[in-house]
Amino acid sequence: MSVLSLLKWRYATKRMNGQKVPDEKLGTILEAVRLAPSSLGLQPYTVFVVESEAWRKKVSPAIYNQPQILEGSHVLVFAAWGNITRESIDNYLDNVAKARNIPASSLEGYRSMIEGSIAGKTPEQIRAWNAKQAYIALGVGLIAAAEEGVDATPMEGFDPAALDAALGLDKLDLHSAVVLALGYRDAANDHLASAPKVRRNISELVVRL
Amino acid sequence: MSVLSLLKWRYATKRMNGQKVPDEKLGTILEAVRLAPSSLGLQPYTVFVVESEAWRKKVSPAIYNQPQILEGSHVLVFAAWGNITRESIDNYLDNVAKARNIPASSLEGYRSMIEGSIAGKTPEQIRAWNAKQAYIALGVGLIAAAEEGVDATPMEGFDPAALDAALGLDKLDLHSAVVLALGYRDAANDHLASAPKVRRNISELVVRL
Repeated sequence: MSVLSLLKWRYATKRMNGQKVPDEKLGTILEAVRLAPSSLGLQPYTVFVVESEAWRKKVSPAIYNQPQILEGSHVLVFAAWGNITRESIDNYLDNVAKARNIPASSLEGYRSMIEGSIAGKTPEQIRAWNAKQAYIALGVGLIAAAEEGVDATPMEGFDPAALDAALGLDKLDLHSAVVLALGYRDAANDHLASAPKVRRNISELVVRL
Repeated sequence: MSVLSLLKWRYATKRMNGQKVPDEKLGTILEAVRLAPSSLGLQPYTVFVVESEAWRKKVSPAIYNQPQILEGSHVLVFAAWGNITRESIDNYLDNVAKARNIPASSLEGYRSMIEGSIAGKTPEQIRAWNAKQAYIALGVGLIAAAEEGVDATPMEGFDPAALDAALGLDKLDLHSAVVLALGYRDAANDHLASAPKVRRNISELVVRL
């Protein structure tokens, strides 16, 4: 299916039917998330895949017990890093040097650029910056899910502090930024399954110069 | 091509060859951006498509004269709304009522939910929230571009105030959030064209619970 067809097929599924997303499909969706671009290549987020029923029950109240949490089979919590540490920059540059078979010393200019980008930001701005990168991965993951015939509901309706506490993120300086529930639509019980998609017209969305 | 193949094909193109992205392909990319989901469905952003050479020259300094601006053929500037006005909520709910052929009065509960979401946020938080939604559309647009064989470079390396001023966004309460340059890679002059992609391993990115 084309990307446009996938976008038309998907919708913010409210009710799911309990069927489990197979591991192989989950793996494809996570691989797409992994390949998503991010600013400077840093991927400043960690993705928690909440699958076991015990864990889904544990996080459910923090997501206001929305039905997808238990009716779906996996809940992806995109957790933005609270900071960009020296260690994470070192790890990243090590990865670049290894993947491209170049000496680490050739990346010192790049290191300065990264450090310069961070130096000008407050901790709050860094966290917001990191969260925004996670939204790119969310957009990419949505399309990968649709290609696998998996329904995916992006969710911002959660209590970040409660979700952080439920997952123990606070101790890791991670901050739940956005959630993606995965599963299969229960079309008979979800009035949105057949509702026309609502978007602004292109002339209202776009200005051409 | 599968979404994974598209993600592997694309990269943050640094040098482009001046070839123009045809209108039809641009239209497909913008349609994907239009169909991208956003929180509550509000699509709280406007996309400026900077195509004419005069306009690209005008915005180029604000984007630090990165070569893609003039070597590519279109620069998409995702401008986040500075606020979510009563009028924009009215327009949105009108669109929902029309698209789904339901009375506007049936959406009063939804209106309250939207207004409640906004009421708890500072103006700065609303702007950041709106910007994050634009990043979902960016992620979706990237994949649509790859499907069309069009290179797309996401850019955060710009001076937001200068770009807002160049486009006259300040007067519209719009704020440049992120930029996507479109064009075709100049593989001979872009060392990144053949460089292996660098991403963390799945075991470093994902925690399974």
